[in-house]
Amino acid sequence: MQMTKTSSGNFFEDFRLGQVIRHATPRTITSGDVALYCGLFGARFAVQSSSAFAKAIGYPGSPIDDLLVFHIVFGKTVPDISLNAVANLGYAACQFLAPVYAGETLIAESEVIGLKENSSRKTGVVYVRTRGCKQDGAAVLEYVRWVMVNKRDAAAAAPGDHVPRLPTIVDPKLIGASSPALDIGAYDFALAGSQHRYDDYQVGEKIDHVDGVTVEEAEHQIATRLYQNTARIHFDQFSAAQGRFGRRLIYGGHAISLARALSFNGLANAFHIAAINGGRHVSPLYAGRTVFAWSEVLAKSQLSGRTDLGALRLRTVATADRPCRDHPYKTGEDYDPAVILDLDYWALIPR
Amino acid sequence: MQMTKTSSGNFFEDFRLGQVIRHATPRTITSGDVALYCGLFGARFAVQSSSAFAKAIGYPGSPIDDLLVFHIVFGKTVPDISLNAVANLGYAACQFLAPVYAGETLIAESEVIGLKENSSRKTGVVYVRTRGCKQDGAAVLEYVRWVMVNKRDAAAAAPGDHVPRLPTIVDPKLIGASSPALDIGAYDFALAGSQHRYDDYQVGEKIDHVDGVTVEEAEHQIATRLYQNTARIHFDQFSAAQGRFGRRLIYGGHAISLARALSFNGLANAFHIAAINGGRHVSPLYAGRTVFAWSEVLAKSQLSGRTDLGALRLRTVATADRPCRDHPYKTGEDYDPAVILDLDYWALIPR
Amino acid sequence: MQMTKTSSGNFFEDFRLGQVIRHATPRTITSGDVALYCGLFGARFAVQSSSAFAKAIGYPGSPIDDLLVFHIVFGKTVPDISLNAVANLGYAACQFLAPVYAGETLIAESEVIGLKENSSRKTGVVYVRTRGCKQDGAAVLEYVRWVMVNKRDAAAAAPGDHVPRLPTIVDPKLIGASSPALDIGAYDFALAGSQHRYDDYQVGEKIDHVDGVTVEEAEHQIATRLYQNTARIHFDQFSAAQGRFGRRLIYGGHAISLARALSFNGLANAFHIAAINGGRHVSPLYAGRTVFAWSEVLAKSQLSGRTDLGALRLRTVATADRPCRDHPYKTGEDYDPAVILDLDYWALIPR
Repeated sequence: MQMTKTSSGNFFEDFRLGQVIRHATPRTITSGDVALYCGLFGARFAVQSSSAFAKAIGYPGSPIDDLLVFHIVFGKTVPDISLNAVANLGYAACQFLAPVYAGETLIAESEVIGLKENSSRKTGVVYVRTRGCKQDGAAVLEYVRWVMVNKRDAAAAAPGDHVPRLPTIVDPKLIGASSPALDIGAYDFALAGSQHRYDDYQVGEKIDHVDGVTVEEAEHQIATRLYQNTARIHFDQFSAAQGRFGRRLIYGGHAISLARALSFNGLANAFHIAAINGGRHVSPLYAGRTVFAWSEVLAKSQLSGRTDLGALRLRTVATADRPCRDHPYKTGEDYDPAVILDLDYWALIPR
Repeated sequence: MQMTKTSSGNFFEDFRLGQVIRHATPRTITSGDVALYCGLFGARFAVQSSSAFAKAIGYPGSPIDDLLVFHIVFGKTVPDISLNAVANLGYAACQFLAPVYAGETLIAESEVIGLKENSSRKTGVVYVRTRGCKQDGAAVLEYVRWVMVNKRDAAAAAPGDHVPRLPTIVDPKLIGASSPALDIGAYDFALAGSQHRYDDYQVGEKIDHVDGVTVEEAEHQIATRLYQNTARIHFDQFSAAQGRFGRRLIYGGHAISLARALSFNGLANAFHIAAINGGRHVSPLYAGRTVFAWSEVLAKSQLSGRTDLGALRLRTVATADRPCRDHPYKTGEDYDPAVILDLDYWALIPR
Repeated sequence: MQMTKTSSGNFFEDFRLGQVIRHATPRTITSGDVALYCGLFGARFAVQSSSAFAKAIGYPGSPIDDLLVFHIVFGKTVPDISLNAVANLGYAACQFLAPVYAGETLIAESEVIGLKENSSRKTGVVYVRTRGCKQDGAAVLEYVRWVMVNKRDAAAAAPGDHVPRLPTIVDPKLIGASSPALDIGAYDFALAGSQHRYDDYQVGEKIDHVDGVTVEEAEHQIATRLYQNTARIHFDQFSAAQGRFGRRLIYGGHAISLARALSFNGLANAFHIAAINGGRHVSPLYAGRTVFAWSEVLAKSQLSGRTDLGALRLRTVATADRPCRDHPYKTGEDYDPAVILDLDYWALIPR
């Protein structure tokens, strides 16, 4: 009897412009997820670490780490969007829209906003706008990503031909709604680990985050499963051994979370990611490599109508097996070979 | 001074027919256990993943994954039953009797229902019926397992000679009490990840679950400790290096949970294991191996008096380092050498 | 632009006698931390494992494992005290002062109570008394540790010259406040895993804890990050490969937690560590090694005004790759080369 129940994911020719996909599986986030995320990345931002600290400044409790929310929403999209992906090409227009708290349930849906077949006709690029919502429908996260997806059949007609226009930066006028108005008078900077506020950071300033962390196979697998991300390249060494890389590729988001946790040393009060302007996984990361990171302040912006927080536009660069004292990045158009991640985002920090 | 406080476990001659053993340690299950179990296995069944989803169909909240309950109850029995085991021979008559929720405490007790010395007189087979209960005494799980246990002294008299008659299948009339009556009208099949219901599955249908997952030492050790299972063969590489296998053996239940999580792809709505008819750990699993799985629908059964759910009798077969496109199982009486697990169970699925 | 935001930690000449340091980051402990700690160490003490068991004897719920509290408080001190440490030399006068429950937030502060430059002038020993408190200021833990710290500049003047007088034992009159008065009539010894009480242990008794557990890199990294301990030597293989040991050193507290979990077999009712008289990390522990442990009862003490619990003074010795049947410890002044940990503490046990 034939196997018809198993999903093998969508191929390029299966997508349609304007198509809306509701993703499985709804996921309730709990304090258990928070603890495991802490054990895997060791983030130390006080607002997410201490409910007493969060309440003192006006949150009802500690919000869930922004990237944990991102990874869980992202994970839901994998079975529908990127199971047959060749490469995850980029992110844009990522906005965090509301805080998420333990006990809340996340669901996700994506709209296909662009389709472009490659000249080889073997693959095409799929652009999706994904929205993560709470169980009551309130949006918590929105982002665009584009991904190169295999065709099932090279001879199949391209399902569309449209490349969406995407912003290179999220307008700072649009960010900030993801944080309640805060009582910064009650923000204990000693307890948070640094005295540095919005005004202390200068555009052009570069910060080496100093520490390095070596990734183990068990760690990235546990993290990626926690997000219910099913992309097999992260888990299946038997098949990977026969493939192009010979080993498991680590989920790109793992490098983002590692770099973000490292960035505490230098950005201790930049506790909330409000938006991601763009992100690129420059090179794959493998287990056994040690990740380092540094950041540059690309811009600063006040938030309209708010005196509690300001926004720093940061570029955080992560490397593998290369400390970042000298801020390795690009030579001309070419990335330093050690760079694995180039992430451009807005972080909020007390004024 | 002599060491008298340490338990070295029971040997074959220490058991008595009819003996009842209350096991240590009581264990409160929390959302922390649920998160870690998710990180270790990545299950995606919507009912267990989302409390909002579970509540919509009539649960008071997400029930704890059936296998997590099983492993925790099983773990308690190890110090008393199988610390001196040579082999875990089989399971039968395993019934899940009531859902378990976060915050509830589990305890376990076992009755010795069979004893059979082997002809070598060095070992014997112990049959126990184990019951897992909540703190108020309500049973949540019952199963029989039999295990070959060393004798302390080959010359000791056999403590009994009785092989119990065990069912090869749990009567479907007996299952279903472990699920409340559900409002399937509120079951969102898109969100659950599949449209396939009871009527869509055919007896004889075979489903390759496609994905593979490589097991790391840290993963199975963390899982097995989470269940407070103390069998040293899973944890002690120093001693294992000098033993028959040369390395740590992975707890057999780890393969069951991996296969169950993989089976989501093809059985997304078969969200609840109501009973295990029988199970066999055909070959040991070691770290570094990649587990694949496939299932066959062996039978179907309606549940008496219920129109919300039906039962699929499934055989899920797991392999190591061998994809399951061609459904590897047996040649005659002999298992395919890649098979590590042969599990026969009843899963409930919306009608 | 210069990097000025990153903390590189304090060097010996940065400390001052009497200096009080409030440490970042406040940390709310949850049932998620408890579950992960269970998965990492597999402790089985009934009071910490079952809220039903804990409530039956008079706790409002399961208290958090003492060592998890210790590690979290310790972790907070690392960025300020020991980021430039050469060696963690010892602990003394460690008292647990109050139980901690899930949902409570811990903060920590340290007072510098001693400073002694070494004759090389390249390093000095810093003595700190650290106090862990709940968010309302109530102390839960106090201990002294001393650590050899690098100087930034060998020519810098020593910041002080005082070696504090430290007790070699915590007076048993001072312990016990960390446990509420308990109803031992409701303590179920079968469920707890052993019938042995205070009166059953004899001074001089030695107990081999039998089991061994092999440590994986992922495990100690996850544990150490869970405590937000940032000491790079535990995480950065790239840098460690160029250093003295060639590999990551495991956080000393990991060995303490492993030994404590192993000690359940023989000390199942000694459920609460009330004080640590002293501790020494005799040799470093590396991933891949298997930890064994044994304990000796050094002394016993009643608790003033209490008939529910008594105190056992225990020395627990942990080894790497060496079973402890013959209680390996010292030959004259020299430790057995397999010994990694020598821990002297007071544990409370029902009378």
